[in-house]
Amino acid sequence: MKVKRLLNIDLLKLPLNKTIFKVKAKEVGLPPGTLIHVGERKAEKPVISLVNYDQSLFETGTDLTVEEAMVFKETPTVSWINLSGIHDITIIEQFGLNFGIHPLALEDILNTQHRPKLEEFDDYSLIILKQLLFDDKTQTIQTEQVSLVLGPHYLLSFQEIEEDVFGAVRSRLKRGNGRIRQRGPDYLAYALLDTIVDSYFHILEAIGDKLVLLEENLLRNPDQTTLTQIHHYKKELLSLRKAVWPLREVISGLLKNESALISEDTQVFLHDLYDHTIQVFDTVEMFRDTVSGLQDLYMSAMSNRMNEIMKVLTIIASIFIPLTFIAGIYGMNFEYMPELKWDAGYFAIWGVMIVCVVGMLIYFRNKKWL
Amino acid sequence: MKVKRLLNIDLLKLPLNKTIFKVKAKEVGLPPGTLIHVGERKAEKPVISLVNYDQSLFETGTDLTVEEAMVFKETPTVSWINLSGIHDITIIEQFGLNFGIHPLALEDILNTQHRPKLEEFDDYSLIILKQLLFDDKTQTIQTEQVSLVLGPHYLLSFQEIEEDVFGAVRSRLKRGNGRIRQRGPDYLAYALLDTIVDSYFHILEAIGDKLVLLEENLLRNPDQTTLTQIHHYKKELLSLRKAVWPLREVISGLLKNESALISEDTQVFLHDLYDHTIQVFDTVEMFRDTVSGLQDLYMSAMSNRMNEIMKVLTIIASIFIPLTFIAGIYGMNFEYMPELKWDAGYFAIWGVMIVCVVGMLIYFRNKKWL
Amino acid sequence: MKVKRLLNIDLLKLPLNKTIFKVKAKEVGLPPGTLIHVGERKAEKPVISLVNYDQSLFETGTDLTVEEAMVFKETPTVSWINLSGIHDITIIEQFGLNFGIHPLALEDILNTQHRPKLEEFDDYSLIILKQLLFDDKTQTIQTEQVSLVLGPHYLLSFQEIEEDVFGAVRSRLKRGNGRIRQRGPDYLAYALLDTIVDSYFHILEAIGDKLVLLEENLLRNPDQTTLTQIHHYKKELLSLRKAVWPLREVISGLLKNESALISEDTQVFLHDLYDHTIQVFDTVEMFRDTVSGLQDLYMSAMSNRMNEIMKVLTIIASIFIPLTFIAGIYGMNFEYMPELKWDAGYFAIWGVMIVCVVGMLIYFRNKKWL
Amino acid sequence: MKVKRLLNIDLLKLPLNKTIFKVKAKEVGLPPGTLIHVGERKAEKPVISLVNYDQSLFETGTDLTVEEAMVFKETPTVSWINLSGIHDITIIEQFGLNFGIHPLALEDILNTQHRPKLEEFDDYSLIILKQLLFDDKTQTIQTEQVSLVLGPHYLLSFQEIEEDVFGAVRSRLKRGNGRIRQRGPDYLAYALLDTIVDSYFHILEAIGDKLVLLEENLLRNPDQTTLTQIHHYKKELLSLRKAVWPLREVISGLLKNESALISEDTQVFLHDLYDHTIQVFDTVEMFRDTVSGLQDLYMSAMSNRMNEIMKVLTIIASIFIPLTFIAGIYGMNFEYMPELKWDAGYFAIWGVMIVCVVGMLIYFRNKKWL
Amino acid sequence: MKVKRLLNIDLLKLPLNKTIFKVKAKEVGLPPGTLIHVGERKAEKPVISLVNYDQSLFETGTDLTVEEAMVFKETPTVSWINLSGIHDITIIEQFGLNFGIHPLALEDILNTQHRPKLEEFDDYSLIILKQLLFDDKTQTIQTEQVSLVLGPHYLLSFQEIEEDVFGAVRSRLKRGNGRIRQRGPDYLAYALLDTIVDSYFHILEAIGDKLVLLEENLLRNPDQTTLTQIHHYKKELLSLRKAVWPLREVISGLLKNESALISEDTQVFLHDLYDHTIQVFDTVEMFRDTVSGLQDLYMSAMSNRMNEIMKVLTIIASIFIPLTFIAGIYGMNFEYMPELKWDAGYFAIWGVMIVCVVGMLIYFRNKKWL
Repeated sequence: MKVKRLLNIDLLKLPLNKTIFKVKAKEVGLPPGTLIHVGERKAEKPVISLVNYDQSLFETGTDLTVEEAMVFKETPTVSWINLSGIHDITIIEQFGLNFGIHPLALEDILNTQHRPKLEEFDDYSLIILKQLLFDDKTQTIQTEQVSLVLGPHYLLSFQEIEEDVFGAVRSRLKRGNGRIRQRGPDYLAYALLDTIVDSYFHILEAIGDKLVLLEENLLRNPDQTTLTQIHHYKKELLSLRKAVWPLREVISGLLKNESALISEDTQVFLHDLYDHTIQVFDTVEMFRDTVSGLQDLYMSAMSNRMNEIMKVLTIIASIFIPLTFIAGIYGMNFEYMPELKWDAGYFAIWGVMIVCVVGMLIYFRNKKWL
Repeated sequence: MKVKRLLNIDLLKLPLNKTIFKVKAKEVGLPPGTLIHVGERKAEKPVISLVNYDQSLFETGTDLTVEEAMVFKETPTVSWINLSGIHDITIIEQFGLNFGIHPLALEDILNTQHRPKLEEFDDYSLIILKQLLFDDKTQTIQTEQVSLVLGPHYLLSFQEIEEDVFGAVRSRLKRGNGRIRQRGPDYLAYALLDTIVDSYFHILEAIGDKLVLLEENLLRNPDQTTLTQIHHYKKELLSLRKAVWPLREVISGLLKNESALISEDTQVFLHDLYDHTIQVFDTVEMFRDTVSGLQDLYMSAMSNRMNEIMKVLTIIASIFIPLTFIAGIYGMNFEYMPELKWDAGYFAIWGVMIVCVVGMLIYFRNKKWL
Repeated sequence: MKVKRLLNIDLLKLPLNKTIFKVKAKEVGLPPGTLIHVGERKAEKPVISLVNYDQSLFETGTDLTVEEAMVFKETPTVSWINLSGIHDITIIEQFGLNFGIHPLALEDILNTQHRPKLEEFDDYSLIILKQLLFDDKTQTIQTEQVSLVLGPHYLLSFQEIEEDVFGAVRSRLKRGNGRIRQRGPDYLAYALLDTIVDSYFHILEAIGDKLVLLEENLLRNPDQTTLTQIHHYKKELLSLRKAVWPLREVISGLLKNESALISEDTQVFLHDLYDHTIQVFDTVEMFRDTVSGLQDLYMSAMSNRMNEIMKVLTIIASIFIPLTFIAGIYGMNFEYMPELKWDAGYFAIWGVMIVCVVGMLIYFRNKKWL
Repeated sequence: MKVKRLLNIDLLKLPLNKTIFKVKAKEVGLPPGTLIHVGERKAEKPVISLVNYDQSLFETGTDLTVEEAMVFKETPTVSWINLSGIHDITIIEQFGLNFGIHPLALEDILNTQHRPKLEEFDDYSLIILKQLLFDDKTQTIQTEQVSLVLGPHYLLSFQEIEEDVFGAVRSRLKRGNGRIRQRGPDYLAYALLDTIVDSYFHILEAIGDKLVLLEENLLRNPDQTTLTQIHHYKKELLSLRKAVWPLREVISGLLKNESALISEDTQVFLHDLYDHTIQVFDTVEMFRDTVSGLQDLYMSAMSNRMNEIMKVLTIIASIFIPLTFIAGIYGMNFEYMPELKWDAGYFAIWGVMIVCVVGMLIYFRNKKWL
Repeated sequence: MKVKRLLNIDLLKLPLNKTIFKVKAKEVGLPPGTLIHVGERKAEKPVISLVNYDQSLFETGTDLTVEEAMVFKETPTVSWINLSGIHDITIIEQFGLNFGIHPLALEDILNTQHRPKLEEFDDYSLIILKQLLFDDKTQTIQTEQVSLVLGPHYLLSFQEIEEDVFGAVRSRLKRGNGRIRQRGPDYLAYALLDTIVDSYFHILEAIGDKLVLLEENLLRNPDQTTLTQIHHYKKELLSLRKAVWPLREVISGLLKNESALISEDTQVFLHDLYDHTIQVFDTVEMFRDTVSGLQDLYMSAMSNRMNEIMKVLTIIASIFIPLTFIAGIYGMNFEYMPELKWDAGYFAIWGVMIVCVVGMLIYFRNKKWL
């Protein structure tokens, strides 16, 4: 039943997941630091929202301008300024000017195909990550870039889409009783990273479930779509790996960070996050190994089926071809064929044929083909 | 006979071992350090038991409360407090409060899918490991998480199941004449680790035995279940590898530990344990290599069998198809066919046919197909 | 339609891309530092051009002699001297003499098959790179060597071809308002490197597009040219990898450079460039993985097709061979064959045959061959 | 002829080499340092023998007790005490007591499945190695563990079997004119190690010879046992690799040894030995690569043979099936078949058939199937 | 045409290249430093020749004795003493005595199967290398060992064969105007190393050319010898890799050398040589990758051909088997078969048959089998 459900998704009819092959190059020769948005436009209109808090204070704002947001840059409270929709270059430029962000950092934020990375500047750090979402309908992983700029009293976050993937963190802030309100922007950055890594586990959970079904299906009833599906999940795992592998470096870079931006208290949490990242990576690798194993199983299942088909043909052909020959002999029209005159000739021939058949059946049984 | 025994376990009829694909993600956005039990509940009711000893003293207790256990935290004797059944979050929380354990450490103890790891805190170390059991009936490896918290005078151990996997260590403590009673909790931790690594050898022994049978079976009588079995053991070895690989880091971390928790005397023993871990890992890798070799052998055996089947069909068809044609010729009803009138026509035709057959047999023998 | 376009390029009819196998050895025993041009001559006539600039000044010159160029070596302005066409050894020798370049460096500049590398000399650094161009007609990557000699106030660039691949940089210099005019030759070298790495993204974009088509084609209608195409792109990716892999070392070498040649400001940009190089490399590796996956898919598609063909043969042969035998039986000319006399004999035989056919169809349907 | 010799060893009839899968676990929960003999008992009765020498002195003794042997521990001469047969735990225990050897070291000596290793204790070093012997009859590698305990004035060696594998070293000592009598126990240990590494070259020589035969056989006359043989040597190379890989670490450990146990003079020799070990390892890896190549060749040879068989069947069937059909046509009993009445009908049909055959032969020749 | 040339070399008829499997072990238990010549004797008679030079002086000598050669050891001029033919142990011994070379170094020089290595002694360095020659007739790589002993004022070179592979260096010395006469023995050693590495490029060039032909041949007309040839070049590349891989370490060892033997001037040249070695290694690896690709192509080409053969058989058999059945039906001798009496029966049957054939052809065309 569950297997059926999987099979209902006819991957051949779905649009192929071509994102793995999509590389978008910027125009050759543009000066570095030129701000261009690379990627699809995923949000209607860029929205700047703000959460400003400390242990006692909690205020929020939406639809701010960059100038309004900048006010909170130097306040001793923690200011989390989030931009949803990064396709508007002027807004990014304003952020750059007001918050003193290096043009190269801005270029990376705008390039939605950037590799996850951590780069430390004098008074802020840039973290680029991939938020991954598993689209159940197409069974593909949707990648979306999230960039964080971590300063002494503020955290800027840049998202491609409008949806609030960090809603849970916002609620925790609002509730106000947790650890998060007592700490600085470094802990907030950690909380966002943690949310993202948690979402990777969800993708692994989803893919793992599919692989169980795929394996069952493979052992029960392999068909021609099975390999297409194996190929499909292989590609998805490859693109998951592409997001996770550099993330490891990012978090280990934060751990080794010697600047004052990351407090020692937060280090313990980052260490824990690092463990989770390793676990995601290990699981991806194990899944990839196992998917390769499934492919071998499939190839062998196909070859077994072929063998079985050939066996049937061989047995039928091997039995009837000689019999047909015998019948052919006595269908000849020679004038002098003594056997034809015998009274029991016909029955004798039946006897000979039955002996042939029995002999062959015994031979095949000995060969273990029956 | 022995081979038969293996074949009696029809792996296709067993439930597939899906644990390798099972990833359980926590809910997105929960604050880190939130205590949730991840995994199945394997014990009826959590039981706290205690062994308190030094060179002369030896006392035990069962069914204690956390408060009763906490009394032994600061005593100069070695206190080993064991919790069987970790699904009750309140008990874990109490341990956290009473023994001053970091919420992240508690979270890891509760997450039964955690990767083996060592984490050092200010006045205790957290060790997470996998206890592996080989279930002979399903031929699968059962994984169970064991967490140790090693403090200056105490050792906390957390197990998922009720069974006492550390019974042997308890007996050695009771006997009282060995090295174990003269040393601190670090040696006790080592003794528990040693028990776990020893159990890995038992799993390798069990899998090795099966692989011998599988190889024999493969060379004598390969069939369609063989590859399923190869695939099965490949997955088991993969999950064994997943437990052993990080264990190496754990023990080497303990060896490099500079805190006062691990005495120099114990280091020698840990070094020995490290050697054993490497040996387990090497053997797992060698088994994996060999299982890959078995798969190649299987594919080739199948292809050989196919060749043999084809050979039989080819020989029979190649011999009889021309003969049938000859018979067909003289079955034609043309009014003027001179051969039909000949007296010896029928026998001449038999002669021609026998010459054909002999010629072909010679040809096939030259081709080494016979 | 798009697929058709791909298929119109019949790779079998194109000249094979043999460059991957082309190694050109110099004559054995020539003293090291002997200047020989290794490779094809790609430019008509070597042309030396100059751009001399600082924040306020901007002058250019073409068709200079080496002596004329040398004048600019020690001027405090930044002098970019470019040589297009490196096959004329005397010009290279003059450069060596006038700019004090080590004979080994000159030899490397002339050897167009050199591996990308960075070598630091006392007062200049030599950077060797590959400019790659994707030839859409032959679907191959054309490799061209670019060498840079970075001195305190000058940058020499050596190109194999006449075309100005660095035209965009030249325009940026001319426009004069950007960062580039305010910085030294190290930033200019970075700008050239950046142009080259950007062009790698274009190649990846082009190959990625082709791989999408190839995958679609593979799933819809695989034929014998498909594998040749897979093999083709595999080789192209291999030669791309060959250019990118050592580039990583080159840029990381520049980053670690402790000489005064690279200013700290430029380091930030080089760091960004390094990220891009890693991303190119990662993408090449992912493409290679995926192309391997495509090959597996192809092999399996072929084997599936084979199975289908065999199935048809088996079903037809298995049904008709026994029927033909039955017909053969009643074609025998025995004098006494009771069935032949029966009135309904002929129809009875039809009945028997129909039962046979139906039985077999049911059997095949059960086997899921129909 | 030589090939025949190889084929006479029917590996399928030999007992399978199962040692690669044999893991012997000790009982769970035994305290570490518990002395148990793991492995087969290979010697009748443990025999302790002694060689005591310096530049001028040379005395030997056999069948000593441990107490008698211990006398030589502190003498300034070099005392080499050898125990053949390690299954008697009490003797090992006595060695432990008298020579002050750590219980863990004793446990390792007794565990004949231990991984080669070097462990340094305060005043002695433990070296565990594998002596390998190639059994020509079964074509398998026999592994035997040799343990050395190197002290300031003595060298203890522990062997599993009675045979004196170190006979050559003993003779060199007796001859007395060489370097060996002038140096300490470290050089003696080196000499024993050297003997063992030399024996690895002999195994490589033997396997190399077999692989030559296997390759010849494969190219001339591959059959179903060939892959079994390839699989066999693959496993042997795997077990050789398992012994050699850690040996590298052992010798590099001795080279880095900073204790006074290894003199500088001996270091030069150890360096040489290290080179040999690397060479053995490289050769094992190259053999493994080549054996994989042989396997590919075999698979392809099999598939070529299959193709050839299919070709013959195709040609015969394709030629005769249409001919038989034609004959069938004119075997029909329709009352009105005009051709049957023609005088030349029969011969015309022969003509048609010959045209068919010739046409097909031309077609097949064009297809290069003939 | 060119392809033909390749095919004329029938590798199956050539003696197999067995050197890859040839390991020659020395007798077990010989004391280390025992001088034995391992390998074939390749020269008639050992010949010692001398070149003694400095900037102004240049003198040569041939057929010297070791004593005569030794005179030049301490002269301030550079003395290059070359021994061609190393099978005479007494000469090597004399070199050892007169030049103070360690017995282990001598042993390595005599062991022509030694791995390339660099070993530094107190006042000289030993360099062991492989001179490789590509034998065009057998298409195999011939390996020959060259050992260099680099002292403060002298360079000893030991070659297996008589031919002067270093003739070009000798000529450069004679010409006297180059850098080589102005520098010490370290530069001479570099010049010899450079000659050897240059010769590797020639081998790559030769193999590259063959691989181009092999690829063309594979795409046009693959046959059964193609895989044998792929296997052949795979083995040659493996043995090339075996020589190049340790060479990297040798040259990087010379670069890190801190003794006074290597002057700083020479370091620049060694650095360049190191680059070349890396390039050789990279190319070998790329060739190996591509050869693997060729093998996949071959397997697929074979499988495609198989498919085509099967298709023809299927089509012919599928068309004629039913037709033959129909003819068989009307060849039956039932007394009452109404169709036989019909006037148009015969032609009706032809009609039925033609309908069958057309139907099947349409079906096959739809399936894209035609």
